[in-house]
Amino acid sequence: MIKAAIVGGTGYTGGELLRLAAGHPQLSIEAVTSRQAAGTAVADWFPHLRGHSTLDFVESLPDGGRGLDVVFFATPHGTAMHQVRALLDSGVRVIDLSADFRLRDAQCFAQWYGQPHAAPELLAEAVYGLPEVAASDLATARLVACPGCYPTAVQLALLPLAEAGYLAQAPIIADCKSGVSGAGRSGKIPMLLAEAGENVKAYGVDGHRHSVEIEQEVTRHAGQAADITFTPHLMPMARGIHATVYATLKAPVADVQAVYAQRYTETPFVDVLPAGSHPETRSVRGTNVCRLAVHVTRPGRVTVLSVIDNLVKGASGQAIQAMNLMFGLDEAAGLTLPAALP
Amino acid sequence: MIKAAIVGGTGYTGGELLRLAAGHPQLSIEAVTSRQAAGTAVADWFPHLRGHSTLDFVESLPDGGRGLDVVFFATPHGTAMHQVRALLDSGVRVIDLSADFRLRDAQCFAQWYGQPHAAPELLAEAVYGLPEVAASDLATARLVACPGCYPTAVQLALLPLAEAGYLAQAPIIADCKSGVSGAGRSGKIPMLLAEAGENVKAYGVDGHRHSVEIEQEVTRHAGQAADITFTPHLMPMARGIHATVYATLKAPVADVQAVYAQRYTETPFVDVLPAGSHPETRSVRGTNVCRLAVHVTRPGRVTVLSVIDNLVKGASGQAIQAMNLMFGLDEAAGLTLPAALP
Amino acid sequence: MIKAAIVGGTGYTGGELLRLAAGHPQLSIEAVTSRQAAGTAVADWFPHLRGHSTLDFVESLPDGGRGLDVVFFATPHGTAMHQVRALLDSGVRVIDLSADFRLRDAQCFAQWYGQPHAAPELLAEAVYGLPEVAASDLATARLVACPGCYPTAVQLALLPLAEAGYLAQAPIIADCKSGVSGAGRSGKIPMLLAEAGENVKAYGVDGHRHSVEIEQEVTRHAGQAADITFTPHLMPMARGIHATVYATLKAPVADVQAVYAQRYTETPFVDVLPAGSHPETRSVRGTNVCRLAVHVTRPGRVTVLSVIDNLVKGASGQAIQAMNLMFGLDEAAGLTLPAALP
Amino acid sequence: MIKAAIVGGTGYTGGELLRLAAGHPQLSIEAVTSRQAAGTAVADWFPHLRGHSTLDFVESLPDGGRGLDVVFFATPHGTAMHQVRALLDSGVRVIDLSADFRLRDAQCFAQWYGQPHAAPELLAEAVYGLPEVAASDLATARLVACPGCYPTAVQLALLPLAEAGYLAQAPIIADCKSGVSGAGRSGKIPMLLAEAGENVKAYGVDGHRHSVEIEQEVTRHAGQAADITFTPHLMPMARGIHATVYATLKAPVADVQAVYAQRYTETPFVDVLPAGSHPETRSVRGTNVCRLAVHVTRPGRVTVLSVIDNLVKGASGQAIQAMNLMFGLDEAAGLTLPAALP
Repeated sequence: MIKAAIVGGTGYTGGELLRLAAGHPQLSIEAVTSRQAAGTAVADWFPHLRGHSTLDFVESLPDGGRGLDVVFFATPHGTAMHQVRALLDSGVRVIDLSADFRLRDAQCFAQWYGQPHAAPELLAEAVYGLPEVAASDLATARLVACPGCYPTAVQLALLPLAEAGYLAQAPIIADCKSGVSGAGRSGKIPMLLAEAGENVKAYGVDGHRHSVEIEQEVTRHAGQAADITFTPHLMPMARGIHATVYATLKAPVADVQAVYAQRYTETPFVDVLPAGSHPETRSVRGTNVCRLAVHVTRPGRVTVLSVIDNLVKGASGQAIQAMNLMFGLDEAAGLTLPAALP
Repeated sequence: MIKAAIVGGTGYTGGELLRLAAGHPQLSIEAVTSRQAAGTAVADWFPHLRGHSTLDFVESLPDGGRGLDVVFFATPHGTAMHQVRALLDSGVRVIDLSADFRLRDAQCFAQWYGQPHAAPELLAEAVYGLPEVAASDLATARLVACPGCYPTAVQLALLPLAEAGYLAQAPIIADCKSGVSGAGRSGKIPMLLAEAGENVKAYGVDGHRHSVEIEQEVTRHAGQAADITFTPHLMPMARGIHATVYATLKAPVADVQAVYAQRYTETPFVDVLPAGSHPETRSVRGTNVCRLAVHVTRPGRVTVLSVIDNLVKGASGQAIQAMNLMFGLDEAAGLTLPAALP
Repeated sequence: MIKAAIVGGTGYTGGELLRLAAGHPQLSIEAVTSRQAAGTAVADWFPHLRGHSTLDFVESLPDGGRGLDVVFFATPHGTAMHQVRALLDSGVRVIDLSADFRLRDAQCFAQWYGQPHAAPELLAEAVYGLPEVAASDLATARLVACPGCYPTAVQLALLPLAEAGYLAQAPIIADCKSGVSGAGRSGKIPMLLAEAGENVKAYGVDGHRHSVEIEQEVTRHAGQAADITFTPHLMPMARGIHATVYATLKAPVADVQAVYAQRYTETPFVDVLPAGSHPETRSVRGTNVCRLAVHVTRPGRVTVLSVIDNLVKGASGQAIQAMNLMFGLDEAAGLTLPAALP
Repeated sequence: MIKAAIVGGTGYTGGELLRLAAGHPQLSIEAVTSRQAAGTAVADWFPHLRGHSTLDFVESLPDGGRGLDVVFFATPHGTAMHQVRALLDSGVRVIDLSADFRLRDAQCFAQWYGQPHAAPELLAEAVYGLPEVAASDLATARLVACPGCYPTAVQLALLPLAEAGYLAQAPIIADCKSGVSGAGRSGKIPMLLAEAGENVKAYGVDGHRHSVEIEQEVTRHAGQAADITFTPHLMPMARGIHATVYATLKAPVADVQAVYAQRYTETPFVDVLPAGSHPETRSVRGTNVCRLAVHVTRPGRVTVLSVIDNLVKGASGQAIQAMNLMFGLDEAAGLTLPAALP
């Protein structure tokens, strides 16, 4: 059994780590921290976990985390970067679900996240943990930065074209729709059911932190500068991301469908739908699956539809997938069950 | 034109007063106060009111309200009771949408609202403003306490039986379902779309402030002590209340349908549906209408279904209906448009 | 492995049987029938089951079902009663999720379901499969009638009081709220998102088929005639039932909480919440759990709150729980994972 | 009073015409036809219109429509084109909410709508009724084709750039999100709450009828061929369209905000939000307003956010706006009330 702990466990990604751990045959959560909830039961914060977790939240990791195999950070950005060094020095591996180690460049982090990076010396070591790209790096990684939810959906949509060198030097549009759980479990008025229900709106059109992360990674995959216009929208639902990605190819590609099918033959969590399909977010709800469909709308122009569950493949499920690879387990361990429909 | 102001205008009932005023031919809102929003535009808080209100929120009523015909309090309980006396002394009439003047008994108020009443001497004068009962009192009222949302739906369901003396001395069940806007426009985690969506739960089963208000009024209508078990439930929607009320009659009544139809012949906002009907909350959304259906389920036992919009007939619309009666206008002025479906 | 088949697999209960089977260690679905879908892939009807089921729908059971251990009927009422005899004669056990074998009395069936019963001789043998009551009968049952969704929620709410003889000879109110999936996967206008969204309404107030089933069973548990007013309501959500049950006791009971806790000590899927609780439907979504809270609202009067997932504990999960007991497996096999929140 | 009738009144656009007529000071609906509903009351189909319409549906227009001022067709495509000629010959003007007269080219109609056009000789006369463009043509029009819902949102987003000649010869992306009421009031399984709730999906990515309509009109506005990739998505809500439109300019424009503000100075129903805004669909729910925000995301590249109510500005409200212009009424008559929030 992998002995793990969660730092910052009262939010949605913390809750999902606990839920998924309940169904994972080789993962044991030993402790969950929360400053505000310390001393109360996990089941008091997560009514669905009654009977599945007997833990109480603790103020901080017992014995500084020593003896654990891995620690998950399910904290807001700006927390993990202060605590990771000590854990690594104690021989504990770290999977950070926050943004602290996603950007390669400390300046860039400071600019987008409004604070200097506290551990810039670790940025080079941190593995950007998109398992469909980084599987072999993950095997030996000490510190993993889990991709953001939007960046996961968009990268998986573009990866086959980027890696194959098919992308033109042209603007890419990533029009993304997300459920409100992406905003976290805090009392923000715009996320009330009475505000966000029966409503659609865009936000952050003039600049969103995930924008720079997407460009960083797609640039890396493509080996050329990516120019991506990313527009997030809020949907009247709890979970799910639908990324609609518009890309231009250098030249028409004979069988784009085959390019996708082939790229994702070996990846257990990317499901390329038959030509002509339209994936639905509900089909991946609660699961670690990304479903993709690629449409050639005009010669040399493609629209890729990519759906994930923002809290699973976009966060906690991907974190566990990364952990599986880090510890030599079956990549899919604990992550195999289907969504429930309706 | 009636010159009016709103105290506490950033919440949902304040917003609805502003919306309804925009369509009222004889009502002019001269000022809207808000401590937190003072200096900002109404349209910044209510994106749907762009072009319909050019007001900015102000810290307090200009000139203490002097010169106004009426002031609406759309504040949380505990505010109006401190400010009403001065307004009345200035000759300004007051319509309080909060709970401050609903209970006849100051002790009872103190017990349920956790603070002593600040103006107990006004309780006797305050008119409990259910227009279907209090129309004539409203004509001369200086101070009106608008009924709570649940109490409105439940009273209208029971009124014909209570007034006619048909109710047995037996427990009445009022099982009520409400949209989340009843909880107000504040950042409470349980009201997030990600928490309240796809979910139903009861709350306050062991005691709710509206319980005592309902019993007080039904006792008054019936002329005998009412024993009412009131259970509120939260629905995954923004607006609407569905009250399902179970009552026992002293003896079977020949034509209960006719009792209801007759009682509400003259009331413009209570619509008694044909026998066998099931009213829908959406049919009254945004309107001041209460739709009722009465079912005799066993001899001497009735189930009454009553739907209202909690923010309109349950709050701001009812307040304007009361105002119309206070100022001798057509009772329905500004309140006549149908709901939009879907 | 238990070899099973599903008759009528394109609806929601069929889909849930397939989903739950995917996570069951000892259950193998060998065939799924559907007249309308014969020849097409299960995954074409259930996009969430891509990769989890490779079956195609077939017109009818291969070899008339011979060789199977058990057949699940996920058909509308009126189908199973024509086909069960032949299966039983072939040594195949049957679990019927429809209403065909729920009522003990053939006349009563004919009256409520509008057709004569086709196999009245099997009614006496059929086990009404509420596992919390019928566990030992299930061990040897050849034919199991799965309880309806509402009856499951209401019975579990009343069982401890009924069995202990605490219920007075007084009316019981069962006010029930259900998600729309209870209406099945067919194109009914009132179940459109544009009709059922942002809306609450009652239906069937003058008589609902589940009413007679509830009275039949509560009468049996209590050993005295039960007088139950059952009112179903439609909620703007897909899944979940919240039953709010109002009962009168013969006399005040010292510790009602303990009565519930004790009755459900040994039942893996009934979770009695601490005193003062309000269970939420989302806490059981996708699971086989019933969560209960009991409130004493006045001396000798209780309100019981009971939540289930109508498609799982109210249908397919309960069917698998029954199957586990029929075949001597762990009662909870394949049914242990928690809900996903949000 | 304008004497009008509605052909095909049981759907959502028919219902909205009736609702809006109830608040219009100069519009009287004399008859509503429906084959399936003939003989039943309007209020039986539209529970929100009880008390607002006393009409019964009729099989066909009394006296073939003679004596009416105008007839609205709220029928599926393929109906109006068979009936318009006779009405025009009787001196009755026609406003068609269906697609029959939107496309200028009969071949194109036949290709996209799968049937030959029945009245190609009227195509040249028909006015494409986007009032923000066609106000003067409408004044004398006999036959008006109301724009589709998506085309309305997209055209209004692009109009200022197109008319001013700022659009580059480059692909335009129109990524559109719509509530499910756009699919009409018929029993389609994918539109059930249990299917479309908590779900987002694209559809028609490989070709949608509104695509050709959008290109036809933007080409006309711009005076150059428009190359538009249009992707519709289904949102888990009843009403509203959010169009996110990505366009490239020939060259950077100094003050794009001013271009929009100026273009829409005189149009009562287009509200250009301040720079940096993100319009919300709920802010226009039930109203005839289009709210726009324009963002310059990179030099020479703009993202325009455009929201409408698909059933009002996208259908019935726009039809009445057109009627107002046809009959010399105030363009905004009957269309001035704000949305209700929440």
